[in-house]
Amino acid sequence: MANITIFGTGNMGTAIGTVFAAGGHSVQHIDSDTSDQTVSGDIVVLAVPYAAIASIAADRADQLAGKIIVDISNPVNFETFDGLTVATDGSAAAELAAALPQSQVLKAFNTNFAATLATGKVGDDITTVLVAGDDAEAKAAFTAAATAGMTVKVIDAGSLKRARELEAMGFLQITLAAGEKISWTSGFAVIA
Amino acid sequence: MANITIFGTGNMGTAIGTVFAAGGHSVQHIDSDTSDQTVSGDIVVLAVPYAAIASIAADRADQLAGKIIVDISNPVNFETFDGLTVATDGSAAAELAAALPQSQVLKAFNTNFAATLATGKVGDDITTVLVAGDDAEAKAAFTAAATAGMTVKVIDAGSLKRARELEAMGFLQITLAAGEKISWTSGFAVIA
Repeated sequence: MANITIFGTGNMGTAIGTVFAAGGHSVQHIDSDTSDQTVSGDIVVLAVPYAAIASIAADRADQLAGKIIVDISNPVNFETFDGLTVATDGSAAAELAAALPQSQVLKAFNTNFAATLATGKVGDDITTVLVAGDDAEAKAAFTAAATAGMTVKVIDAGSLKRARELEAMGFLQITLAAGEKISWTSGFAVIA
Repeated sequence: MANITIFGTGNMGTAIGTVFAAGGHSVQHIDSDTSDQTVSGDIVVLAVPYAAIASIAADRADQLAGKIIVDISNPVNFETFDGLTVATDGSAAAELAAALPQSQVLKAFNTNFAATLATGKVGDDITTVLVAGDDAEAKAAFTAAATAGMTVKVIDAGSLKRARELEAMGFLQITLAAGEKISWTSGFAVIA
């Protein structure tokens, strides 16, 4: 059993919680009402909006040291809805990794809509989580924890540099749903 | 019935030909052996490697004027296999649109592996072509032509600027297949 901490109790934080709880893991949720709690998890999921990540990283860098930190954000520019707010050759995950040099930062869940994590299905296909990161051991621990409940699959999408492509894909999926081309309960499936 | 010209007779050019042929359209194929042919199609698909696009655009700009030009390329940097060769805030499609100001450039098919276009299936899901472009009429004509045979679905992914995200997604899909995380006969499905 792994200890998981999830920042955020919105749709994504809740759905990601169900994925880990299905595997029998202990899940700690921290939100703005419980922000005095100390992080107990070895895997810490930041299921908060992109804008909230930097302050969590700054405030908790010591607590997060040595842990696996999972960035799920899609840093969409909501003013223009026509691009991302991060550097065009970078990613939110790369920014987080720079802010937390003593943590192992992974990108995951950002290409999954909350409903597909809660149900484990994208249409008739099992929901697949794409994970990117530079530390193979951290990716293996994350994958074992996320798949223990067998509600989702996890595919290793490569180094943390691939977060750029994952964030592009996440943004594209959001624009398709916002434009009513797809629903918020389906989206991109990954067929192995 | 639409007249379609496809540059390239490789896996992609052949598979895309079957999609249009299924709709009863006339399909002209042009490859290096038949490069003296004049383009007869109103919709012209450049099913050639990224590196070959610039010279076709330069040589045929007059012939391609007024036509719908479909860029299917994934401008992968095959030396590093760690990124794209185009500007990080741009796309191959944007480059092509700049080279062919009198044509209507669309991005499409670059997130579909050839086998999924030939069979019309990604796993058990119907193959979905994502198309991006700035001209609504061109997208509508392309969509009508590509879906007439009912072997694939087409979803409008927005303006040509979204080609950046489509190319990121295409690149990611290629890296997953090259890394044997997914097969070349499946990949990303789009569930509406």
